[in-house]
Amino acid sequence: MKRDPVGGPATICPAKQGYPRNCWYVAAFSAEVGRTLLRRTLLGEPVVMYRTERGDPIALVDRCPHRALPLSQGRLEGDAVRCMYHGMKFGADGVCLEVPSLPTAPKGLAVRTFPLVEQWKWIWIWMGDPAQADPALIPDSHTMGLNRPGFTAATRFMCEMQANYQLLHENLLDTTHVTYLHPNGFDGGNAVSASFKVDYFDNSVRLTREIQEDSSPFVNRFFGTTGVAYHRLLITETFPPNLNVISNVVTDRSDPSRTKMSVSPFPVTPGGPGHCYQFAATSMNFPCDVEAENAAFWKLFCQDRDVLEKIQKVFDEQGPDLPEYSVRADQAALWCRRKIFEMVNAEEKP
Amino acid sequence: MKRDPVGGPATICPAKQGYPRNCWYVAAFSAEVGRTLLRRTLLGEPVVMYRTERGDPIALVDRCPHRALPLSQGRLEGDAVRCMYHGMKFGADGVCLEVPSLPTAPKGLAVRTFPLVEQWKWIWIWMGDPAQADPALIPDSHTMGLNRPGFTAATRFMCEMQANYQLLHENLLDTTHVTYLHPNGFDGGNAVSASFKVDYFDNSVRLTREIQEDSSPFVNRFFGTTGVAYHRLLITETFPPNLNVISNVVTDRSDPSRTKMSVSPFPVTPGGPGHCYQFAATSMNFPCDVEAENAAFWKLFCQDRDVLEKIQKVFDEQGPDLPEYSVRADQAALWCRRKIFEMVNAEEKP
Amino acid sequence: MKRDPVGGPATICPAKQGYPRNCWYVAAFSAEVGRTLLRRTLLGEPVVMYRTERGDPIALVDRCPHRALPLSQGRLEGDAVRCMYHGMKFGADGVCLEVPSLPTAPKGLAVRTFPLVEQWKWIWIWMGDPAQADPALIPDSHTMGLNRPGFTAATRFMCEMQANYQLLHENLLDTTHVTYLHPNGFDGGNAVSASFKVDYFDNSVRLTREIQEDSSPFVNRFFGTTGVAYHRLLITETFPPNLNVISNVVTDRSDPSRTKMSVSPFPVTPGGPGHCYQFAATSMNFPCDVEAENAAFWKLFCQDRDVLEKIQKVFDEQGPDLPEYSVRADQAALWCRRKIFEMVNAEEKP
Repeated sequence: MKRDPVGGPATICPAKQGYPRNCWYVAAFSAEVGRTLLRRTLLGEPVVMYRTERGDPIALVDRCPHRALPLSQGRLEGDAVRCMYHGMKFGADGVCLEVPSLPTAPKGLAVRTFPLVEQWKWIWIWMGDPAQADPALIPDSHTMGLNRPGFTAATRFMCEMQANYQLLHENLLDTTHVTYLHPNGFDGGNAVSASFKVDYFDNSVRLTREIQEDSSPFVNRFFGTTGVAYHRLLITETFPPNLNVISNVVTDRSDPSRTKMSVSPFPVTPGGPGHCYQFAATSMNFPCDVEAENAAFWKLFCQDRDVLEKIQKVFDEQGPDLPEYSVRADQAALWCRRKIFEMVNAEEKP
Repeated sequence: MKRDPVGGPATICPAKQGYPRNCWYVAAFSAEVGRTLLRRTLLGEPVVMYRTERGDPIALVDRCPHRALPLSQGRLEGDAVRCMYHGMKFGADGVCLEVPSLPTAPKGLAVRTFPLVEQWKWIWIWMGDPAQADPALIPDSHTMGLNRPGFTAATRFMCEMQANYQLLHENLLDTTHVTYLHPNGFDGGNAVSASFKVDYFDNSVRLTREIQEDSSPFVNRFFGTTGVAYHRLLITETFPPNLNVISNVVTDRSDPSRTKMSVSPFPVTPGGPGHCYQFAATSMNFPCDVEAENAAFWKLFCQDRDVLEKIQKVFDEQGPDLPEYSVRADQAALWCRRKIFEMVNAEEKP
Repeated sequence: MKRDPVGGPATICPAKQGYPRNCWYVAAFSAEVGRTLLRRTLLGEPVVMYRTERGDPIALVDRCPHRALPLSQGRLEGDAVRCMYHGMKFGADGVCLEVPSLPTAPKGLAVRTFPLVEQWKWIWIWMGDPAQADPALIPDSHTMGLNRPGFTAATRFMCEMQANYQLLHENLLDTTHVTYLHPNGFDGGNAVSASFKVDYFDNSVRLTREIQEDSSPFVNRFFGTTGVAYHRLLITETFPPNLNVISNVVTDRSDPSRTKMSVSPFPVTPGGPGHCYQFAATSMNFPCDVEAENAAFWKLFCQDRDVLEKIQKVFDEQGPDLPEYSVRADQAALWCRRKIFEMVNAEEKP
């Protein structure tokens, strides 16, 4: 048994993957950020988020530069945040506006802010070098299926887990797992053994499975009825380090002109070494009751979370160097593992 | 004050003792292992145990070699275990039987198995070099009092504790503790000050106490009545690293031909650096209500467990180098401490 | 942003401050120590305290020198403590009086005792070199306001917190915090911006604030009525490493001959690297209902404790080298930080 027989650095532990910083990550759904202070740990740093009175989202380091109390323990005053220990007030640009014990705020006292971009219903954050924070680097809406004609898009939920984000990427990329971990959830039992191909691009890897099935609860929704035997393309594509998109293209085998499709973007955000967030949304060209679906899918996503947290614990307790055996279906996941590893290394070089 | 005045390596902390691997340890009572997956951590390694359809006990490393999920999270299929993440199936010999995403299972993919031997009502496991796993090395039944004519043997219970197994051995070997920790439990108040001798053998150490008492709840059971003044030999013998046996030989002082005896084997198994299991059984040549006794003894054993866990915490929090003062009654315990230390050292040499 | 712009060692993290050992610290209120065994962790060491039958307070290392069980798990027998594992008994002077398994206690077996001095309602402990334990080094009662004519003194409570004691000293020394952290608690809103001066002495630092206010719940108590516009001196003085005293001198602005005063001593005792105790008392020359006050003040003190525990957590999780920005009001706190740092360094030098 050896780690990573497909080739490449054998030393990358999927539970200990680092994270590139010069990159946009989803920090929150738009609806999560408002006129209260939201604390979230992103890439190992505490961040406090809120909206100005005009509605602009703001992200600051969640730590008063004076005596380190989290600003999220303080209060909003207009567009500013006041630390409730000694009363220091910081504007939405992070600049200190008031030190109550001084007649005027000292020059140069500020809390770090992070660039945010709100697109569709996501708030993207840039935790790296602000000079490189080009919004053009945000994954485009078409890729995420969010602006396609005839499609309706909706958010599902955020799923936080105590597991390295690499484990989540590998979960999303290796769709063989759906058959066993989610019986009757996402397939009719054939996904695991379906033929597949892997396509490699500069910035993504795509695994496409062709599935022949006569019925599955997941696909029945596409046609709004049971009894439609179908041909299904199950496509999972990861854009390291921050996004996975799973698409399903389903064709009625008795009427090949009848094709339905869903595209589900899953932004993935590292919280820390053993902690991440999955932001789930979906877009489809057929009618559906999103609220009912979300309740059902939440249970399925929790099955993944529980497994990934157990795997994280194995590596935490038994060490990062456990032997690991990979098979053909892991190719895409291993490419993603190496790709992120290279991105981190490239940033660490001077 | 100095550690270990009796002589020998002063550096062995009883809360940090290592464990030899080339040795049989009790992994479970027979009745604990059946047609469900039992996870237990033994010698620092996660192990999953179950029985085949024929009834043979099986032990595998409790970690899928593919992506590290504990196999105990999976399910039994006949004699095989299926990991419920990506569906890989492993036979009772550990060999991979099926990778659902591949047409045939890859050669050479297997999960490590551990030799097991079932004797009496114990299942013994060998976690070291399998080539050395000779069943003749298992402590014999006579030593454990399990096949003596006129004796009835019964299991009591397993007591798991967050303490190094060396602390448990020292607890069992230093019987002076019974008077204070278990008042009215195992003696009538005289055990602590009774005269004793220590006998050293190649593979064991035996401490024998001669106790004169007129009554104690523990001994009254031997004659099924109170009012019998007795002479008592309290014999504790440890066979490092995996077994302690405590025997009581009680003689009616008014009728020296009337002698009753109990032999209680206590296999001791390291779970990890600060974690162990005590497996308790007993054998006696007088009638007794084992079920009622077990309920009563469980409370007494928990007193030991609580003390040992508190001592473990002292060393964990305050460091392994705390000064320690030993007295004559600790001789046997110190011999055991050094013996195990040497066994571990001998294994670590190349 | 830089740590400690006022000058001095930039490397002292207030959440990681060490503690001098050759110094008296309050270990308990007199009323806390009696004829049961009280375990407390002081300067990183477990200590067990009790009183002899005559009433003298005793402090021993809370660990049996034989097999490390905390003595506080044992029992008092007259003036001695018996370990309830193997029954060893230690006198109030720490000397072993009995080893039940031996005919006589071994010479030289003892548990370490700590010098205690009971003054007013405090019990002071000396954890360092006993030869240097001079009671004259205990802070004097006059400084603490405990023997002034016309004043009534009372204990308030002990507040234990999971925070380094330096954080507590800085909390007590930077009285700007009362306005924001305790609105309507200790001032009428003007403390934060009041003018102040700092006086430095050999062994203490004193920060005096002059406050003009017309009313505050805290000060109304001084005159027993509302409606008295006053001039207030708010004086906080720290005697590193073990004591802070906060005094209030309040003068009726319409009748400057009418002055009332309170003096509140706060002994501060390190429990360990991220753990301390605050012992609160007060003395005043006006009538008050101490019991009702204590209930009200307890809530205010818990606000400080909660903030300090959150700050401790920030440094524990994010590292000791976080940038820190100090302002003029921090001068006294920074002096105290450096002073304690120097005391610790002086002790560590050979």
